[in-house]
Amino acid sequence: MRFSLHIFRSMKNSVYIMQMLDKYASFNPSPLSLKKLAEFGRSGSNEQNKESFRFLQKELPVRLANIMKEISLLPENLLRMTSVKLVMSWYQQSFQELMEYESKNPPDQKVLDNFTLTLVHIRNRHGNVVETMAEGVMELRNRYGIDSNTENRIQYFLDRFYMSRISIRMLINQHTLLFGKKEKHNNPRHIGCIDPSCNVSSVVQDAYDSARFLCEQYYLAAPELTIISKNLLENESDPIQIVYVPSHLYHMLFELFKNAMRAATEHHIEEDQIPPLNVMIVKGQEDLSIKISDQGGGIPRSKQDLLFQYLYSTAPQPARSESASAPLAGYGYGLPLSRLYARYFQGDIVLSSFEGYGTDAIIYLKVMSSEANEVLPVYNKTASRVYNRDIPVNDWSSPWITNQRSFSTFSAFRS
Amino acid sequence: MRFSLHIFRSMKNSVYIMQMLDKYASFNPSPLSLKKLAEFGRSGSNEQNKESFRFLQKELPVRLANIMKEISLLPENLLRMTSVKLVMSWYQQSFQELMEYESKNPPDQKVLDNFTLTLVHIRNRHGNVVETMAEGVMELRNRYGIDSNTENRIQYFLDRFYMSRISIRMLINQHTLLFGKKEKHNNPRHIGCIDPSCNVSSVVQDAYDSARFLCEQYYLAAPELTIISKNLLENESDPIQIVYVPSHLYHMLFELFKNAMRAATEHHIEEDQIPPLNVMIVKGQEDLSIKISDQGGGIPRSKQDLLFQYLYSTAPQPARSESASAPLAGYGYGLPLSRLYARYFQGDIVLSSFEGYGTDAIIYLKVMSSEANEVLPVYNKTASRVYNRDIPVNDWSSPWITNQRSFSTFSAFRS
Repeated sequence: MRFSLHIFRSMKNSVYIMQMLDKYASFNPSPLSLKKLAEFGRSGSNEQNKESFRFLQKELPVRLANIMKEISLLPENLLRMTSVKLVMSWYQQSFQELMEYESKNPPDQKVLDNFTLTLVHIRNRHGNVVETMAEGVMELRNRYGIDSNTENRIQYFLDRFYMSRISIRMLINQHTLLFGKKEKHNNPRHIGCIDPSCNVSSVVQDAYDSARFLCEQYYLAAPELTIISKNLLENESDPIQIVYVPSHLYHMLFELFKNAMRAATEHHIEEDQIPPLNVMIVKGQEDLSIKISDQGGGIPRSKQDLLFQYLYSTAPQPARSESASAPLAGYGYGLPLSRLYARYFQGDIVLSSFEGYGTDAIIYLKVMSSEANEVLPVYNKTASRVYNRDIPVNDWSSPWITNQRSFSTFSAFRS
Repeated sequence: MRFSLHIFRSMKNSVYIMQMLDKYASFNPSPLSLKKLAEFGRSGSNEQNKESFRFLQKELPVRLANIMKEISLLPENLLRMTSVKLVMSWYQQSFQELMEYESKNPPDQKVLDNFTLTLVHIRNRHGNVVETMAEGVMELRNRYGIDSNTENRIQYFLDRFYMSRISIRMLINQHTLLFGKKEKHNNPRHIGCIDPSCNVSSVVQDAYDSARFLCEQYYLAAPELTIISKNLLENESDPIQIVYVPSHLYHMLFELFKNAMRAATEHHIEEDQIPPLNVMIVKGQEDLSIKISDQGGGIPRSKQDLLFQYLYSTAPQPARSESASAPLAGYGYGLPLSRLYARYFQGDIVLSSFEGYGTDAIIYLKVMSSEANEVLPVYNKTASRVYNRDIPVNDWSSPWITNQRSFSTFSAFRS
């Protein structure tokens, strides 16, 4: 009796959750600018706590529901993979927990505190989403293989899935840092994880130092660093600063430095010295550009687009535990993820390589925090079509290498 | 009586031409590699003349028919523009003239000679196709305006239309140079318009000199040039050579130098001296890369994609006669056309700009002439769909600047 009642309850509940999913998936996510995000948490007052609660109470379910709808459009046999099922269960669980707060208005102090705790739980639950989803794709490839149509859909999905995750974690981190238990090590100047005057060249230096440490550990050598700054907006001499999330910038730079160092060191290992990595930082009216130039021998154009493919890595795939071979290479997710971090606030990462000589890697960021609006995947007809659409017949006699054609290049390369 | 007979004949004829158009449009063009093109004309013997005739007898009608089918898919009101009608009439006339040779097998000497003359006529007839089609688009814009969907289709069409033209002229030039009246000034080393050992840095120097001449004429000043060559394939010291069409390479370099000089000169006109243009030439296993770096202040990323739009120019649009304002600026077709020349043989042109500092323009070419296959537009379902398809609803909350999104960026910019 109690048992059947339990079933009844859980059925009733899951129907309700499905309805809520449809409801929230029907809303578009509301992108925030870095400016809004920074202004928002300035005081950290109880009023702002309530305001933040009221925003996240709706916005987090919207962002979760939008991407959960896309997960459900993935190829059948991918959805059957254990790791993918696990990821889905995390999202369902988190969505369900957020529904508890759907009608808690106005929120009393207890609700506010519990909400913050719930967000911490959610963040921790989703800690390994990137690796786990990556493994799901590997399982699929190893068990069934992946044709270029599926390849193309997975690439499209992962860009959107990981971008959605970046944005959800950003919102959660801001709320918990501002209104949760204060963590000691948190910089007083920072607003949540945003630094309103992020010193670009010192983040460059930090990322270089960490990458250098790994590089020397592995190769017993590493290229030097030279930094040139051009501050066109203020005085030439002023250090270049922007409103940004230092951890995001560090993430991108660390990834690019690892690649540049690996290339430069391996390309010149026989020689007396390794040519330095030259970094140029330029602050203009609109764009902040960071160019990292190495002399690591570059890569042919025919392979450049592959670098942003989740299913491709120039480095041998390390076992997850195996730390020895891992330091300068990973799942091949480093570059595509770094580009998502850049694009998240309207920036980008662009590589131009000179095969036989070296590579220029460029990070673009927005100078004006008011222009740095979140870029978020929207679940709509255009999106859902992609998951059924095949790669069209080529309308050129032979494809040249461009972003538009990256997938056909990729399949060409693999066949 | 004779009159009605004449009408009857011309009707019969035009029906026949329509049938032939459909027939030849149903074939895909056959791309040739630079290697094939070069080997082909080595002897210039009468046998090769016949062989070339037999190839062009089919291939030229195929390439004409393929692109004529696409012209017919252009927006109604564009097809009504006088200049566009004129262009169409040229293509119909040329196609008709080629049909005269359809069944001339085997060709006697008289046929071969007439064929070569016909090709010369065709080349001359199509001399002003680029400007005339450009004017057609201007007429359309001035009379009706152009929405972003039409914009997008015209961009797609012009890339294909001009690429088709480049390829047709290439074939015609090879045949007439090899088997027509020998022109004195033609370099004995050249095979038609192909230089089997094209010295890259001397073409760079020539293009720089011409651009410098125009720049000094207009600004009474010009930036210096520094060239660094990295020959990774042969000895470091060997001059870098490839099999290529020098006039195509010159065309691209001249365009890029004009832009770089204009930017650098205008950006530093107040100062004592203009920073030099730095060119790096790298020959690898696959790619030949030519990087032209200027310190002309660069352009914001938000405008970078516009540079390859036919309906956009950073320079004021000069009246065609007005030579004074024209030297360093044109219809804004310079960059997109130069990129087509690069892509025609599997290369590319890529710009990465640092707003507030300067721009790197990179030309990529194939090192192996056997890999330098013509890139040709193919008239098929994929292509014909584009002319009816609207720009889809954006599947991201806000577009970032990438090639995939260039058109939406463009419309965003214009609105």
